[in-house]
Amino acid sequence: GFARLDTHRALRTGDPEVVYAAGKTPQQTVALLRALREQPGDRPALATRLSDETLAAVAAALPDARVDTVARCAALGDRPAPGGSVTVLSAGTSDEPVAAETAFVAAEYGCAVRRIRDVGVAGLHRLLAVLGDLHEADCLVVVAGMEGALPSVVGGLVGVPLIAVPTSVGYGSALGGLTAMLGMLNSCAPGITVCNIDNGFGAAVAAARIARRAPAAGAAEREVA
Amino acid sequence: GFARLDTHRALRTGDPEVVYAAGKTPQQTVALLRALREQPGDRPALATRLSDETLAAVAAALPDARVDTVARCAALGDRPAPGGSVTVLSAGTSDEPVAAETAFVAAEYGCAVRRIRDVGVAGLHRLLAVLGDLHEADCLVVVAGMEGALPSVVGGLVGVPLIAVPTSVGYGSALGGLTAMLGMLNSCAPGITVCNIDNGFGAAVAAARIARRAPAAGAAEREVA
Amino acid sequence: GFARLDTHRALRTGDPEVVYAAGKTPQQTVALLRALREQPGDRPALATRLSDETLAAVAAALPDARVDTVARCAALGDRPAPGGSVTVLSAGTSDEPVAAETAFVAAEYGCAVRRIRDVGVAGLHRLLAVLGDLHEADCLVVVAGMEGALPSVVGGLVGVPLIAVPTSVGYGSALGGLTAMLGMLNSCAPGITVCNIDNGFGAAVAAARIARRAPAAGAAEREVA
Amino acid sequence: GFARLDTHRALRTGDPEVVYAAGKTPQQTVALLRALREQPGDRPALATRLSDETLAAVAAALPDARVDTVARCAALGDRPAPGGSVTVLSAGTSDEPVAAETAFVAAEYGCAVRRIRDVGVAGLHRLLAVLGDLHEADCLVVVAGMEGALPSVVGGLVGVPLIAVPTSVGYGSALGGLTAMLGMLNSCAPGITVCNIDNGFGAAVAAARIARRAPAAGAAEREVA
Amino acid sequence: GFARLDTHRALRTGDPEVVYAAGKTPQQTVALLRALREQPGDRPALATRLSDETLAAVAAALPDARVDTVARCAALGDRPAPGGSVTVLSAGTSDEPVAAETAFVAAEYGCAVRRIRDVGVAGLHRLLAVLGDLHEADCLVVVAGMEGALPSVVGGLVGVPLIAVPTSVGYGSALGGLTAMLGMLNSCAPGITVCNIDNGFGAAVAAARIARRAPAAGAAEREVA
Amino acid sequence: GFARLDTHRALRTGDPEVVYAAGKTPQQTVALLRALREQPGDRPALATRLSDETLAAVAAALPDARVDTVARCAALGDRPAPGGSVTVLSAGTSDEPVAAETAFVAAEYGCAVRRIRDVGVAGLHRLLAVLGDLHEADCLVVVAGMEGALPSVVGGLVGVPLIAVPTSVGYGSALGGLTAMLGMLNSCAPGITVCNIDNGFGAAVAAARIARRAPAAGAAEREVA
Amino acid sequence: GFARLDTHRALRTGDPEVVYAAGKTPQQTVALLRALREQPGDRPALATRLSDETLAAVAAALPDARVDTVARCAALGDRPAPGGSVTVLSAGTSDEPVAAETAFVAAEYGCAVRRIRDVGVAGLHRLLAVLGDLHEADCLVVVAGMEGALPSVVGGLVGVPLIAVPTSVGYGSALGGLTAMLGMLNSCAPGITVCNIDNGFGAAVAAARIARRAPAAGAAEREVA
Amino acid sequence: GFARLDTHRALRTGDPEVVYAAGKTPQQTVALLRALREQPGDRPALATRLSDETLAAVAAALPDARVDTVARCAALGDRPAPGGSVTVLSAGTSDEPVAAETAFVAAEYGCAVRRIRDVGVAGLHRLLAVLGDLHEADCLVVVAGMEGALPSVVGGLVGVPLIAVPTSVGYGSALGGLTAMLGMLNSCAPGITVCNIDNGFGAAVAAARIARRAPAAGAAEREVA
Ligand SMILES: Nc1ncnc2c1ncn2[C@@H]1O[C@H](COP(=O)(O)O)[C@@H](O)[C@H]1O
Ligand SMILES: Nc1ncnc2c1ncn2[C@@H]1O[C@H](COP(=O)(O)O)[C@@H](O)[C@H]1O
Ligand SMILES: Nc1ncnc2c1ncn2[C@@H]1O[C@H](COP(=O)(O)O)[C@@H](O)[C@H]1O
Ligand SMILES: Nc1ncnc2c1ncn2[C@@H]1O[C@H](COP(=O)(O)O)[C@@H](O)[C@H]1O
Ligand SMILES: [Mg+2]
Ligand SMILES: [Mg+2]
Ligand SMILES: [Mg+2]
Ligand SMILES: [Mg+2]
Ligand SMILES: [Mg+2]
Ligand SMILES: [Mg+2]
Ligand SMILES: [Mg+2]
Ligand SMILES: [Mg+2]
Repeated sequence: GFARLDTHRALRTGDPEVVYAAGKTPQQTVALLRALREQPGDRPALATRLSDETLAAVAAALPDARVDTVARCAALGDRPAPGGSVTVLSAGTSDEPVAAETAFVAAEYGCAVRRIRDVGVAGLHRLLAVLGDLHEADCLVVVAGMEGALPSVVGGLVGVPLIAVPTSVGYGSALGGLTAMLGMLNSCAPGITVCNIDNGFGAAVAAARIARRAPAAGAAEREVA
Repeated sequence: GFARLDTHRALRTGDPEVVYAAGKTPQQTVALLRALREQPGDRPALATRLSDETLAAVAAALPDARVDTVARCAALGDRPAPGGSVTVLSAGTSDEPVAAETAFVAAEYGCAVRRIRDVGVAGLHRLLAVLGDLHEADCLVVVAGMEGALPSVVGGLVGVPLIAVPTSVGYGSALGGLTAMLGMLNSCAPGITVCNIDNGFGAAVAAARIARRAPAAGAAEREVA
Repeated sequence: GFARLDTHRALRTGDPEVVYAAGKTPQQTVALLRALREQPGDRPALATRLSDETLAAVAAALPDARVDTVARCAALGDRPAPGGSVTVLSAGTSDEPVAAETAFVAAEYGCAVRRIRDVGVAGLHRLLAVLGDLHEADCLVVVAGMEGALPSVVGGLVGVPLIAVPTSVGYGSALGGLTAMLGMLNSCAPGITVCNIDNGFGAAVAAARIARRAPAAGAAEREVA
Repeated sequence: GFARLDTHRALRTGDPEVVYAAGKTPQQTVALLRALREQPGDRPALATRLSDETLAAVAAALPDARVDTVARCAALGDRPAPGGSVTVLSAGTSDEPVAAETAFVAAEYGCAVRRIRDVGVAGLHRLLAVLGDLHEADCLVVVAGMEGALPSVVGGLVGVPLIAVPTSVGYGSALGGLTAMLGMLNSCAPGITVCNIDNGFGAAVAAARIARRAPAAGAAEREVA
Repeated sequence: GFARLDTHRALRTGDPEVVYAAGKTPQQTVALLRALREQPGDRPALATRLSDETLAAVAAALPDARVDTVARCAALGDRPAPGGSVTVLSAGTSDEPVAAETAFVAAEYGCAVRRIRDVGVAGLHRLLAVLGDLHEADCLVVVAGMEGALPSVVGGLVGVPLIAVPTSVGYGSALGGLTAMLGMLNSCAPGITVCNIDNGFGAAVAAARIARRAPAAGAAEREVA
Repeated sequence: GFARLDTHRALRTGDPEVVYAAGKTPQQTVALLRALREQPGDRPALATRLSDETLAAVAAALPDARVDTVARCAALGDRPAPGGSVTVLSAGTSDEPVAAETAFVAAEYGCAVRRIRDVGVAGLHRLLAVLGDLHEADCLVVVAGMEGALPSVVGGLVGVPLIAVPTSVGYGSALGGLTAMLGMLNSCAPGITVCNIDNGFGAAVAAARIARRAPAAGAAEREVA
Repeated sequence: GFARLDTHRALRTGDPEVVYAAGKTPQQTVALLRALREQPGDRPALATRLSDETLAAVAAALPDARVDTVARCAALGDRPAPGGSVTVLSAGTSDEPVAAETAFVAAEYGCAVRRIRDVGVAGLHRLLAVLGDLHEADCLVVVAGMEGALPSVVGGLVGVPLIAVPTSVGYGSALGGLTAMLGMLNSCAPGITVCNIDNGFGAAVAAARIARRAPAAGAAEREVA
Repeated sequence: GFARLDTHRALRTGDPEVVYAAGKTPQQTVALLRALREQPGDRPALATRLSDETLAAVAAALPDARVDTVARCAALGDRPAPGGSVTVLSAGTSDEPVAAETAFVAAEYGCAVRRIRDVGVAGLHRLLAVLGDLHEADCLVVVAGMEGALPSVVGGLVGVPLIAVPTSVGYGSALGGLTAMLGMLNSCAPGITVCNIDNGFGAAVAAARIARRAPAAGAAEREVA
């Protein structure tokens, strides 16, 4: 009774509804995951933004669930057939949880996911070292806080579809991520599109939709950096 | 001397540099179009944001140029081989110039472009009538001003990659497009990504990158509505 | 001594003063409810924004009070004669407390209240399924967070007076509800009016004033969805 | 070709589409008025936000049109049967155009309209002198710029449904009407709902929907002050 | 060593430095009060913004101190000779702490202070009932949150110098007091000047400077409402 | 007919209504000045914010009027009996029109006005040279744009009532005067109160109300710097 | 009479006052340049922000003046002894006027100035090609609009003092330069300091103060790119 | 594995990467300090923004570390050869932690650091008393919250390079330091550059880069005030 799942969504859009666990009790989240698991379709049931308590409750109640404590996500049921590759870059160590949310969701949606960490623009050589990897991806997700300059630099180097995710990392006039978000929206590198602050989930949905249309030959999941 | 073209860009990203004619004289724009035309690569030379005066100057000086007075764009040289289909939806008649900029650029980048006009959420039946067309596209670009709700409704109906472009249409607390932009970034339909206000050009670059990776079978250019 | 009740208000406007319990002790709230109960007039004494502790204190001290733990409201004394119908729609499960506040207050002000839940614009079929119910109401209150698009869609479907309530649901550039509020104020569906963020109470007062002027024939309280 | 009228709107909501003439040529506005005039329904065709040039063009091309040069509106065709009374209050002389837009549209939608001018809160006696008139209306529209305090004072005096319209009158930290709009949304008088800055049109649509449900006995059009 | 008191200030401006206890330990606040007490001049040593813990520490360590737990202030030493009257009005019960801070400081600076409570503009009769009192004051301080309309109404009724203090009372688009502050700065009643949000202290300093220049005959301290 | 003068205002507050000529025609301003001139009371009729055209029209139509082309003000009729002294300081040459508006209005309201120009904080010696003059005033009005620091420095040097007026002088992040306004509201010198951006008129009304209560002995009008 | 020059400034700070010609007549600017020229000291008289008309008037009236129509600056009198080198980088061609203002003023203050143009982060190879030049400078000034990412990239490559100047280049959510300014203030490359939007003048003053303290050996004026 | 240190940074810029301990565990911070200590170069390993717990953990695990509990910083390893002098001024006692962060880092980077405390502009004599000291520094860092006026006053008195650091000290419309930051960016004293709110670290890096280029003769570390 406390929620009405949009069980038609997978039919319409291919992607089923996902449990947004923030503000829900552990019991509610477990129940919603079970209900989504019942739905027809080829995707696992997913929940995001789990608290420590809910992460533990899901692990206990649903032993088959895949739980990621950095990404704060859980998944239940088989993954769909593989569908393209997504590479997730993050600028600093503090951006890790958002990047992990993208990586978790994209993997559950069938993508081969690569992760490239800590390649902020203040140390360009780290980025230039992985340039070849960037060209191989079907879609890039670039996660950065503070001034959010990383997508501009990456977007000037490769022509792969690129989704930028601003994070709330920073203080003072970082304005909780608004500065990074505004910077990304005004990038001088054309073709960059942007998600809400800390919205690793939304970036993964968008990236998976792009990647699964045309998987590049030979892309496979591995840890780049 | 007044500008230094980034002639490497097409090599790196596939997409060559484009003339942003705002704030340039007609003479400068014509000269830059000629210079870009000299570059190797399979794309036409492009200029956006042309004033009435510059539109006329380009038409006069470069008779081979394709000029669009609503989109305020010009192109010179052959289009690349066809690469996927992009459908551009706009909410109201005032959003037309931004949608036209997207359509023009996407077509010059090789996409088969469809246009669906004046399907604002206050008259849903107009949108539901074209639902089949939406599913056929390789990428959707949804252009809206005021509250910018159209991408949320479209994004709940189809799973095609969707890029939202806020426009500066509106007054008062529309805040020159910020209200529409914020609304799109906070859409309850997951997987929507967003461009800067009135940035039809950027949306076209992103859409063409997505569409050319995996053209859907049978998509062809036609006017939907 | 700690407050001076505006005991004339019911005489002037029909609606008596209401206790805003936020920042008041449980004892103060109980005392003010008792004092309002003494006033002449046909309305119950009302308090909103009760903490868990105050909800319990009111229930204990005033056994006749009607207490709603989701709406965080309490009422004491008889309801007025029935006066029209108000239908409250909410977009997502997180918007529930605000919608419940509207429903509670409108019912105490004499309205027959219907509730329609979880009909966010990302799943339009849920809304279209209840369209008939919308036409029957004397006033609609539409509650939504994030991008706040639901009032635009509803406002394009029916001509019933419609009050939009933005909620603080969302994160990042949702800006604590400002994004939803700005979206509602700039709706392309004309005739929508807007309340402050999370102000379910104010929406109920406005809706009851509208509804009681002209109750539609045959409207009765029932749960729609 | 340049616009697609939402000709179903009157069937769905009772209120037909209205021409927003800002950014349209005089010829386009005249053509759209003619097209709307052809539609079935009991309302006149309406256009708002006409420039001086378009006002003249409409008057010349459509001699039957009713044209108001302060409200910058035009109407063509018979008004519907009378439906309730709307009283429009304005705070200062500079708020006149917005109040006039509300009055014009409400009258064309069938309301008996009263106007009360220049009753800003800095001179309360002017407001208290017309208190009786306020109680008689089916709906009040209160128009004010600068700090936008007038709706709070009126809302504390009468229980009639009250719609507040902030205007862009003021300078400096008036922020183009945002200060008045924020003030109205945070009114300490409950039950006030708010429109966008300078949106006299939207207020009229909402007021007419409220007023026509239950016309108060004996209300008739006259100039109060 | 942790602070360098501006011991010249009383010589230059008449008003000595005051301890801002927020962020200071109880021990530091007690020590600074003692140090200020040693300074020459006719004013007591003052501290504002004391936490519960510091209020208790001051009461224990300095038994001669006057401590006000609502105003969260403390004073030590004799008050100066009486100097004019200040009347402090507050709009709602939640504004009480800010109004109390003004009242406490003004009294310690030698003013005869009157308090008028809970006279928000939604209940004008409460204000009109005390109009005579307002004319008698040497300076008015008007404290209000939410839309901050009270100073406009008072400023239209009397010509006494009037200082407006916005408070952080409210939620959502009240923006922590910015809405009230902006409203007061844009008042249509001329001659109103404004302090920072919740700055009851600053208002008291300004009011005392005005009041002591020309004490109105016969003004004396009493509780008005 | 086009405006309703608040002819009671002088009775209530001592200060009559003033014509705000912005947005009024020269004819309307002349007519309103004449109408105000008819009112009883000891003040001249005043108009502010006159365009070049209106300044000329007033000078031609009302030869007795005092017209100031820098302040953009006009006055008609005898000044009241002298009442205290007001000193107006301005930070830079660009702040001159706002300071002149204050000076004009204060003089017409009976104050002896002194002007101290171009004493921005970047050249402190200019301010220290006139320190004696500051102590003599009954009220100070300090006008500054950009970062608006001058009131803080003056407020630390003298204990005279001080009204700060931010101006829209500056560019970029000066935000049209908001930066100066915010700075003044957060001054570390206590007792400063603030007016709206560029509101020299409001500052004059407030200053005159303060100054006339207790004219300092021996103050007389002269040009300081 | 219309301005009071701060003729002590050069004695105190080494840098004399400079004419800010915006809002001044050509005659006033010419007169102020002449007056500054009379002052003792080793710097030329300077004026910035000259309109086309004032640029022409200065050239005509002061034939010895150095006038730059892109920088919109003028200088009169001998330059001081050479003092260090400043390198000015700009991201795009639209940033040219701001970069030119910095270059002009720094040169007049005795610096050897190098200019590096059009090295936006979307084309990194252009920047890497001039890396050696960057290390040679005594101070870098980096000018960029839109997202303002260039200072972050430069600041990660060299340890030379770096001043970032945001420009108002961009549209929509570029917010007139605020987005670039916020990005620069939140740079992940430490040690970057920031000026106001479009403030090429202020950057030059700061850079010259830094550069003249310790001119790097062998630096000489030349055009880099 | 949890972070990838930019070990090249010292080679490129002279300044090695620094641990930003906010959001890291005490164990991570200790480990990163040890790893940085291993790097070649002449600088100590540094960490900033340490919690109480991490300060204790560093002191326990790394007995050679220099730990400052006000600055919340730690350093490990030898300081570089002395390089110039930096003077840090702070406006109020609440600004101390930010000023201490600057002082700590500048000292570890080889600067002779002087500290001048509590010299806010409301008590100018305190500043004038140390004017001589200001002229002796190679670089000034001026730290202030609230209205942030201190850099303007200092910048008008001396020509030494000056970096302004806004702090989050203040309340209400201080906006968490934005008001101070905006004020500093709009200073009427030319040549001031600005850091992010509370960014004492960044100011120290910039100041050290300036100071080490040209140490003024005879500057030595001592406590000024
Ligand atoms: N981390 C996330 N960020 C944004 N939206 C999410 C996230 N996780 C789930 N959602 C969306 O939230 C919706 C569920 O909202 P609710 O009905 O309030 O539980 C799902 O349909 C998803 O589209
Ligand atoms: N003054 C107005 N303010 C806001 N919306 C308006 C106004 N006048 C007309 N409209 C709306 O604008 C829509 C037409 O937009 P468009 O398709 O751009 O012409 C109509 O359906 C009306 O709902
Ligand atoms: N320069 C000014 N700034 C702000 N308010 C003004 C100014 N001059 C006149 N006023 C106010 O504007 C009111 C007249 O407004 P209105 O009825 O629109 O003419 C007067 O009562 C004054 O209080
Ligand atoms: N382009 C500029 N941007 C900001 N400030 C400037 C500029 N040019 C000159 N100034 C400053 O403006 C002051 C002159 O202001 P004013 O007294 O209004 O002429 C000079 O002392 C300079 O410090
Ligand atoms: Mg890192
Ligand atoms: Mg339309
Ligand atoms: Mg849901
Ligand atoms: Mg008026
Ligand atoms: Mg109350
Ligand atoms: Mg000057
Ligand atoms: Mg370029
Ligand atoms: Mg202090």
